[in-house]
Amino acid sequence: MQPWNDLQQIRSRAPLVHNITNYVVMNSTANALLALGASPVMAHAADEVDAIADALVINIGTLSPPWVESMLMAARAARRKGIPIVLDPVGSGATRLRTTTALRLLEESPPSIIRGNASEIRSLVLSEQGTKGVDSTHSSEESVDAARSLARRCRCVVSVSGETDVIVDSDSVIRVHNGHPMMTRVTGLGCTATAVTGAFAAVNPSALHAAAHAMMVVGIAGEIAAERSAGPGSLQVNFLDALCALTEADITRCLRADLS
Amino acid sequence: MQPWNDLQQIRSRAPLVHNITNYVVMNSTANALLALGASPVMAHAADEVDAIADALVINIGTLSPPWVESMLMAARAARRKGIPIVLDPVGSGATRLRTTTALRLLEESPPSIIRGNASEIRSLVLSEQGTKGVDSTHSSEESVDAARSLARRCRCVVSVSGETDVIVDSDSVIRVHNGHPMMTRVTGLGCTATAVTGAFAAVNPSALHAAAHAMMVVGIAGEIAAERSAGPGSLQVNFLDALCALTEADITRCLRADLS
Amino acid sequence: MQPWNDLQQIRSRAPLVHNITNYVVMNSTANALLALGASPVMAHAADEVDAIADALVINIGTLSPPWVESMLMAARAARRKGIPIVLDPVGSGATRLRTTTALRLLEESPPSIIRGNASEIRSLVLSEQGTKGVDSTHSSEESVDAARSLARRCRCVVSVSGETDVIVDSDSVIRVHNGHPMMTRVTGLGCTATAVTGAFAAVNPSALHAAAHAMMVVGIAGEIAAERSAGPGSLQVNFLDALCALTEADITRCLRADLS
Repeated sequence: MQPWNDLQQIRSRAPLVHNITNYVVMNSTANALLALGASPVMAHAADEVDAIADALVINIGTLSPPWVESMLMAARAARRKGIPIVLDPVGSGATRLRTTTALRLLEESPPSIIRGNASEIRSLVLSEQGTKGVDSTHSSEESVDAARSLARRCRCVVSVSGETDVIVDSDSVIRVHNGHPMMTRVTGLGCTATAVTGAFAAVNPSALHAAAHAMMVVGIAGEIAAERSAGPGSLQVNFLDALCALTEADITRCLRADLS
Repeated sequence: MQPWNDLQQIRSRAPLVHNITNYVVMNSTANALLALGASPVMAHAADEVDAIADALVINIGTLSPPWVESMLMAARAARRKGIPIVLDPVGSGATRLRTTTALRLLEESPPSIIRGNASEIRSLVLSEQGTKGVDSTHSSEESVDAARSLARRCRCVVSVSGETDVIVDSDSVIRVHNGHPMMTRVTGLGCTATAVTGAFAAVNPSALHAAAHAMMVVGIAGEIAAERSAGPGSLQVNFLDALCALTEADITRCLRADLS
Repeated sequence: MQPWNDLQQIRSRAPLVHNITNYVVMNSTANALLALGASPVMAHAADEVDAIADALVINIGTLSPPWVESMLMAARAARRKGIPIVLDPVGSGATRLRTTTALRLLEESPPSIIRGNASEIRSLVLSEQGTKGVDSTHSSEESVDAARSLARRCRCVVSVSGETDVIVDSDSVIRVHNGHPMMTRVTGLGCTATAVTGAFAAVNPSALHAAAHAMMVVGIAGEIAAERSAGPGSLQVNFLDALCALTEADITRCLRADLS
């Protein structure tokens, strides 16, 4: 549960993280990966899914049919190469296209880590009973059972963001209490957490620890940034500065997490 | 003519604003809506146009044929559901594709509010006589007649941005004198004004007042931000902070508008 | 070798720079052109490639087949109109799609200026011998011969960014020593340099001087910004402010370049 070693690995090895992500966050995601010390690659063409990378991040935030094909092809290629896949089912439960796409990705090329908010994670479990939801009113805590059920079904780690972040595999639960409410007023910080999870998964073979360490680092950088920010505009700027400058002392001082 | 009530409504109800907008401004638009207190949804797939929303914003800034189809479908769905539609005819008059698309949207699913600069608004009226223009040299004041003619033809409100913003329906003209010249050096602040107009239209049943209040709030936040900014980079950051922190006292102190 | 005259021209004439560029940098590129004093147009539809512009910038950063067609059509239209074309072969050498597209653009509608990093430029020369590389470990200095060979083959200027920027035509080499290491931690500053090169090419008929002046101005603005920045988040903001405020005295004080 010490993310500092992973962060040092990322900074020294600069893992290549291949992102097929949504238009809204491409720039901020690439900047977060660079600030972290990783190397982002943003590419969505079917002809490019086989690019050399240390991790694959798939985010379904602004979906259209040709992109779904590229996502499926990239996920298959990543499975063949044995690199970790992180899936962010953005908006799953809100529209049929997104729920269907997320479920198809889960089945055809299971990811190492699924990272979403409580509503998205619940939609992937409850859709089996034919229910759908668009709300994000559920807390991550209320969704621990759904997350564990999903983790067992897909044999993967599920990382649920919220006031408390909950990271589960079939046996363990890690809770991360870092973060700041102002972070919800910046678009794409959830997507950033997903991409950062990809960078940690590239250097840490434990998907559970990689997912938890990523949420710790994003939450701590967000807290440090929020202290210096007059609002969500400056938070976005200060978050990148804090992520780039994060020290072991910052982590030791700020980390609030527990394992059960 | 008091935008404060609307702003309080937006902050307490967080209306869902569905944006089909251009690639350039997706991130900054989503961030502006979050800073304002609204909930942005950015989605363009034909399969997703029927998503639950309180307002629909269509912006034709980086157009291609599949997106035009989604825009038309989303506009029809919005009409059926009775939610307000705001159309930003970005670049209408500059290329045939844009003028044609804007006119087609006007005819097939008339918006509640058309929001653009003077050249764009004029192109929608003068194109009927076969003329086209790419200039943005016309002032909003010179375009009051064109705006009113468009408002009457489409039975909607027309909101023309410029040094003075001019908001018209078939009878009234509201002029908003807020804003700052440095705002023209930041890309997408016009598109932001359009998206913010969508949020106001979601809470205020008067399209005229919603459109005017949106321009007031954007202009005032821009003025406050410009006072603190060394250039367009920091203006963009400070604008989001100012929008999020805007108080009734700020509005009372800064508002410069008149109705005729 | 004095970029100040060009900068004054850009600020007074506001040349229209048409960009067909990647999703990641559309916003930051448009903002850099606005901060510089130019007028950005971001449009990729085949129906819009014939828009009025003073320069065309093609950047293959997030490629897909329909965009390749638009790039080819836009380049042909630019050749007919006699406006300068600047090509950024982002990721050439990393995937076959990108190398092939870059080479096809070079052959069918040769640009005035090719602007990329050392690996990209080398891939365009060495691919002829069937080799490919994804590394960016080569310095621009090691790539002077490849750049000159490319410049001669395509009868154009080649501008290679790196710790030292190297700008060559068939006879001359200009080296620009401006810039700051922190700039490599912000996504898209290379793409920004390419777009800025387009603005300089629109006002300076010497492609060699236009390309060199653009790298000087970007490097100097980056240095000034880095002095004021705690990290890559604030660098991005301060870069735009510095670009907008750049004076003749800044350039005289900071410029480090030589011609051989």
